Amino acid sequence: MNFRESAIKFTDSTVQGFEFDVAYTSVLKRAIKTLWYVLEGLDAYWLPVHRDWRLNERHYGALQGLNKAETAALHGEQQVLVWRRSYDIPPPALEVSDPRHPSHDRRYTGLTAEQLPRTECLADTVQRVVPSWTEDIAPQIKSGKRVLVVAHGNSLRALIKYLDGISDQDIVELNIPTGIPLVYELDAELKPLRHYYLADEETLKQAQAAVAAQGKAKK
Amino acid sequence: MNFRESAIKFTDSTVQGFEFDVAYTSVLKRAIKTLWYVLEGLDAYWLPVHRDWRLNERHYGALQGLNKAETAALHGEQQVLVWRRSYDIPPPALEVSDPRHPSHDRRYTGLTAEQLPRTECLADTVQRVVPSWTEDIAPQIKSGKRVLVVAHGNSLRALIKYLDGISDQDIVELNIPTGIPLVYELDAELKPLRHYYLADEETLKQAQAAVAAQGKAKK
Repeated sequence: MNFRESAIKFTDSTVQGFEFDVAYTSVLKRAIKTLWYVLEGLDAYWLPVHRDWRLNERHYGALQGLNKAETAALHGEQQVLVWRRSYDIPPPALEVSDPRHPSHDRRYTGLTAEQLPRTECLADTVQRVVPSWTEDIAPQIKSGKRVLVVAHGNSLRALIKYLDGISDQDIVELNIPTGIPLVYELDAELKPLRHYYLADEETLKQAQAAVAAQGKAKK
Repeated sequence: MNFRESAIKFTDSTVQGFEFDVAYTSVLKRAIKTLWYVLEGLDAYWLPVHRDWRLNERHYGALQGLNKAETAALHGEQQVLVWRRSYDIPPPALEVSDPRHPSHDRRYTGLTAEQLPRTECLADTVQRVVPSWTEDIAPQIKSGKRVLVVAHGNSLRALIKYLDGISDQDIVELNIPTGIPLVYELDAELKPLRHYYLADEETLKQAQAAVAAQGKAKK
């Protein structure tokens, strides 16, 4: 296994000098594997890692596991566009008896049916992500820890919305490029001073366009 | 990255049916990478992982970082044999000012110089490993959790000595094969009922012989 040969080069000079004290990620394989690439790139295998389901990707309810064609065939392209582009309209909810409902997944054994999403609009994702910030991540930062967060397009949107006070309208237009480190510098009250991606402008534009196009392709 | 192509096949039918709720490992790269192989093999990326320095390999003091020839040249083969084979005679201690002393490693930032070993005999390793069992791992098992431990030759020896009540004389002769899962079944009081390796007899013998030979080659 050689993480350094992965597409994402965390050993680039761009990330040199960054050190962390603790890491947070979701319970989903794609985020955890990305975190492993980063830990290998930083030679920081030993970093304490907290896996928190509240940092999971948005739950798409009855759309989970369906591909673009299946979704459009079932609900119509217009309707799918509404679910993707609106802030507060969730797709149809999963029945608790549906095998796709998270209560059937042993990762969520300790949680009640009320805690687990049956579907989510972005507003719902914000509502579950923000407590992971206020209860766990923010206190770590206040105690002087440098925190690495590896999550997903919509859980990161949720975090950024909260930190930067972005409006409901604007947040759905924000495309976070995949696999490019994003640095937030915060003041003593954890208000953002500035943020920036660790990539040159061209790389960043291409990555953002790819995410935006992905959204369109799925409408 | 494909962990399944690693030398250790945790997707073998031998480990099928084993499920875990929580994992413990050291803060050393080789244990953490092995744990990652196991998590990939089990498709259990989400498993909560506790990294505990007390599960680290035995600290060899002033011998740390020296190869066999250098060690023999400095101290003589007979003396090195004594340090390797005795239960309670540690190699010379590192000075705190020595760059190899763990206080200079940021993994141990939260620990005092008194907590950190300057050298260890196996008895010292037992003394630091056992509290990680009694304080953290044992309570998890008592609460019904199935615990995966990925550690090192001597920290596992320490754990096994404690669990099975092995004598000081016998424990130094116990060779734990590298990379072969070892299952302990415990009663309600956490006394071992039985233990077994997940490997056929031939594989197991070869792996144990390899560990024993390694010990000899290093004398």
